[in-house]
Amino acid sequence: MTSPVFERIAIIGCGLIGGSISRAAQEKVAAGAVSLFDADPAVLSRAAEIGLGEARSTVAEAVADADAVFLCVPVGAMREAGGAAIGAMRPGSILTDVGSVKGSVARELRSLAKPGIHIIPGHPIAGTEKSGPDAAFGSLFEGRWCILTPDAAGDADYKAASERLALFWERLGSKVDQMDAQRHDLVLAVTSHLPHLIAYNIVATAHDMESVEEGDVVKYSAAGFRDFTRIAASDPTMWRDVFLNNKEAVLEVLGRFDDDLTALRKAIRRGDGETLFNVFTHARGIRRSIIEAGQDTAAANFGRDTDGKK
Amino acid sequence: MTSPVFERIAIIGCGLIGGSISRAAQEKVAAGAVSLFDADPAVLSRAAEIGLGEARSTVAEAVADADAVFLCVPVGAMREAGGAAIGAMRPGSILTDVGSVKGSVARELRSLAKPGIHIIPGHPIAGTEKSGPDAAFGSLFEGRWCILTPDAAGDADYKAASERLALFWERLGSKVDQMDAQRHDLVLAVTSHLPHLIAYNIVATAHDMESVEEGDVVKYSAAGFRDFTRIAASDPTMWRDVFLNNKEAVLEVLGRFDDDLTALRKAIRRGDGETLFNVFTHARGIRRSIIEAGQDTAAANFGRDTDGKK
Repeated sequence: MTSPVFERIAIIGCGLIGGSISRAAQEKVAAGAVSLFDADPAVLSRAAEIGLGEARSTVAEAVADADAVFLCVPVGAMREAGGAAIGAMRPGSILTDVGSVKGSVARELRSLAKPGIHIIPGHPIAGTEKSGPDAAFGSLFEGRWCILTPDAAGDADYKAASERLALFWERLGSKVDQMDAQRHDLVLAVTSHLPHLIAYNIVATAHDMESVEEGDVVKYSAAGFRDFTRIAASDPTMWRDVFLNNKEAVLEVLGRFDDDLTALRKAIRRGDGETLFNVFTHARGIRRSIIEAGQDTAAANFGRDTDGKK
Repeated sequence: MTSPVFERIAIIGCGLIGGSISRAAQEKVAAGAVSLFDADPAVLSRAAEIGLGEARSTVAEAVADADAVFLCVPVGAMREAGGAAIGAMRPGSILTDVGSVKGSVARELRSLAKPGIHIIPGHPIAGTEKSGPDAAFGSLFEGRWCILTPDAAGDADYKAASERLALFWERLGSKVDQMDAQRHDLVLAVTSHLPHLIAYNIVATAHDMESVEEGDVVKYSAAGFRDFTRIAASDPTMWRDVFLNNKEAVLEVLGRFDDDLTALRKAIRRGDGETLFNVFTHARGIRRSIIEAGQDTAAANFGRDTDGKK
């Protein structure tokens, strides 16, 4: 029989990610037991009701007997949640998180440092556009990357703790990568934060075009717009905090995006079909690389909902 | 037994859309027979080989005995294809197309006008990111809108022909709408052309960030970027022609998009979380409307490929 990686974990914040860690940890025997806390009593009791773990009434109670504590709250709430947790954690245990920004979170958590507690920031690159405990499912992390940004100056105990945490994520089905927080934040600004910002923006633009009725936008959304609304349906609080906490990297990437868009706009204005064709052809190549890397399937998806199935 | 809407149709251009019209028309008894032509002999013979219809060696031969001719070529090739077709078409038959831009196509086709031929531009709002005859499938148009932009000044015969064409699309499973070409082009600039342009642009930006390796972009694409590469994998020639032929509407919508993005960028720079939260929350509402309108499913999709299936 497989023995769990951690005897007990604590999940602080029982939304999609926290709930899915709990489900996956139980299904795949990565944790022997799960303690839960959520600042919203209704969310906490719902999470316990659907089998995500044992509800505890304070953060301190949830973390006291845990080997690893997962902060699964919006980036802007990490400092408060970490502060409530760390004082009650036992020596040798791990404090980690799942925030989409690592530089600011790592700084905040490290400012709380307490001897014997291993602070190892993390970020599973997985999610859906749904929120809340009922959206959680145990296969969410399968085949997905999880990035850990451990302190490079950590001692042997710290390194052993980092390896244990990596093993936990591997048990959930993830592939684990390590990098520094700054590189994480720039890579994610490109692959995640910019796409979400652009998706939110395009939805806002469509809504504000007085010359086009919202009914028409909804009706003809299958022409491409629909795909943007899916990622723009993600949790607003989480995303607000991402942009407030990864400002520099997002603004840098956004500047590049804007320069490129200006070039495309000029090509359209001038009727420069060759430039358009070359940019569009190149995009196909990247798509192919993503499919080859196993990060998406080649199945035609654009017309996927014609029959309500698939 | 159902009788076909048209005894014989001609498909000029045997790619994803032309091929799917043929498949659907045969499966749903919307056409008694299908004649095919494609400028690329290899595409034409492949289309015939996989049962899309009877290959004809010239446009004139393909259209001569057809009740309705469907031009399924890129927007920039419509004029030439229409010119090759119309002279050989018989009186009372319909010349239609499936182009994503209607103003320029309608002007070009009408400049070819020949008495007794009913020119009725059309646009099925359906597609996938795949191209070519092998990508064709018969259910592509089910539940999707098809927009026709008939000439409002048409006589009784013309109106009867328009109704017959609408019936054909309904037989394929589409819902049919009629509007003028200008409104079509503005609505589609918002719901389709802008999203595709932005998707192409974001892929180009990601590729050109020297500070981020392409390997990282591909590896972590599941964080949001992936969804953009899907629509950016669409046919480059088709999309080049869309932007060259719907220039004014696209530039108008792009200007609005840019203004909105500048506002979001300022909010990020200033740390204005309230503005970000409000824009993001609003986007969720539009998503809900699209699901309620049956144009997408509510199923969580972002994490869809964790197991290589669904």
